[in-house]
Amino acid sequence: MRRTVFFISDSTGITAETIGNSMLAQFEGVQFDTHRLPFIDNPSKAEAACLRIKTKYAQDGQRPIVVNTMTSRSLCDIVAGSGALMLDVFAPFIEPLEAELGAKQSGAVNRSHGLVDFERYEARIEATNYALAHDDGLDVDYNQADVVLVGVSRSGKTPTCLYMALHYGVCAANYPLTDDDLDKLELPTRLRPYRSRLFGLTIDPVRLAQIREQRRPGSRYATLKQCRWELEQADRLMRRENIPVLNTTHTSIEEISSKIFEYLGIERHMY
Amino acid sequence: MRRTVFFISDSTGITAETIGNSMLAQFEGVQFDTHRLPFIDNPSKAEAACLRIKTKYAQDGQRPIVVNTMTSRSLCDIVAGSGALMLDVFAPFIEPLEAELGAKQSGAVNRSHGLVDFERYEARIEATNYALAHDDGLDVDYNQADVVLVGVSRSGKTPTCLYMALHYGVCAANYPLTDDDLDKLELPTRLRPYRSRLFGLTIDPVRLAQIREQRRPGSRYATLKQCRWELEQADRLMRRENIPVLNTTHTSIEEISSKIFEYLGIERHMY
Repeated sequence: MRRTVFFISDSTGITAETIGNSMLAQFEGVQFDTHRLPFIDNPSKAEAACLRIKTKYAQDGQRPIVVNTMTSRSLCDIVAGSGALMLDVFAPFIEPLEAELGAKQSGAVNRSHGLVDFERYEARIEATNYALAHDDGLDVDYNQADVVLVGVSRSGKTPTCLYMALHYGVCAANYPLTDDDLDKLELPTRLRPYRSRLFGLTIDPVRLAQIREQRRPGSRYATLKQCRWELEQADRLMRRENIPVLNTTHTSIEEISSKIFEYLGIERHMY
Repeated sequence: MRRTVFFISDSTGITAETIGNSMLAQFEGVQFDTHRLPFIDNPSKAEAACLRIKTKYAQDGQRPIVVNTMTSRSLCDIVAGSGALMLDVFAPFIEPLEAELGAKQSGAVNRSHGLVDFERYEARIEATNYALAHDDGLDVDYNQADVVLVGVSRSGKTPTCLYMALHYGVCAANYPLTDDDLDKLELPTRLRPYRSRLFGLTIDPVRLAQIREQRRPGSRYATLKQCRWELEQADRLMRRENIPVLNTTHTSIEEISSKIFEYLGIERHMY
């Protein structure tokens, strides 16, 4: 079974898409063709969106599903004219929140992914620059770091750091354990002062060999033997030094980040 | 007025936080202290969460607000025992979706930010590596690029590329226009074959000078005069070459990305 879904928003559509994907993931037997309709913030754009949904309705022979975060009643009404199943994301919560807070919803268009909080936004951009400058042991001054990821090459450190920085404004650095560190089974001296901010990543050796093979085909670096040795030594080192470790083989950067924040008690917020 | 909010989830909590922040942003007069409670996926964790919420209730003298994406009824009931205002994100939509799809919700824990779709996840990680390798004119082979951002130094290209890659698996490169390009007012030869994938970023000169001053204090690079000249020449070049341009001064990377996707017709989806 296939169904067409539109994520519609007066802003970026990220909230609609996030909650929409979460809802749809709960219906495993159905294939969803999803379309984004962002920045629908005036009647003529709403009319155009309505027409597009109607056209799809005619093609599919089944009404499309609309996941909607527009807050303007009149724009919602225009889109509802398409005959689609309308799922209004905010509607069920506005009334209980108004009652609870004794305040009226401002009715402004959805600004949660805009530049409302400029300082927080700046912090994210600065953290991203920080992550880039402190990637892969480039700059090893970790005074400002909220977290320093350690692990062997290609264990998932860089994407995780970028994610934590871009989303949460967390200053995340990463240090790749070198053959020398692994031989000696000693924490590099420069990491010692930051012990409480260290977090280790590990990965299944077979998976690591695959990833490295894509990057440097036929190299010693990519052999299973080398991967196994590095990972074993790294695990030993981290256990000995009491550094918490997470296996990234079946864990997404979103999950890794959440777990790191939980462990280190970082209460930074998504912007 | 201050109110305490908990984002609670059986997974990362990203969906709860995204929709929660969007809802709360609509109540401008209220300050919200928000807390994340991710991975609440068994009764004992739910009990602990309940206790934490109860404690906060007693401290505040006002019931906390809970934005919840847990799907297990029994876990929800445990947390509801705290006396908080429960806002169940999925609850209002499950019934209409079940009726529409003629299928039962699977009841599985929220897996939308896990590794359900391994291929899509891989595409995001690969795109992130691509963005890093093709950042700032490093590698200028743009054959694989979905989009190539052009603009002067510090106009917002790098964070935007990383965002598009990390979230959408879009291969985003960026090329900084050099003094030489700006002098000649000519599109660099290497960009010509990719004309249909070019997108320009610009920024307010005063803002640009601030950003550059932080980076290289007292440099010619950071003077308002230099910023103004570069931006004027870049705008002229992009107009002449018919490259679409977006001003990033008051626009977040989320908004910029959405607009670029819309313009270039990129229908890639958030994972």
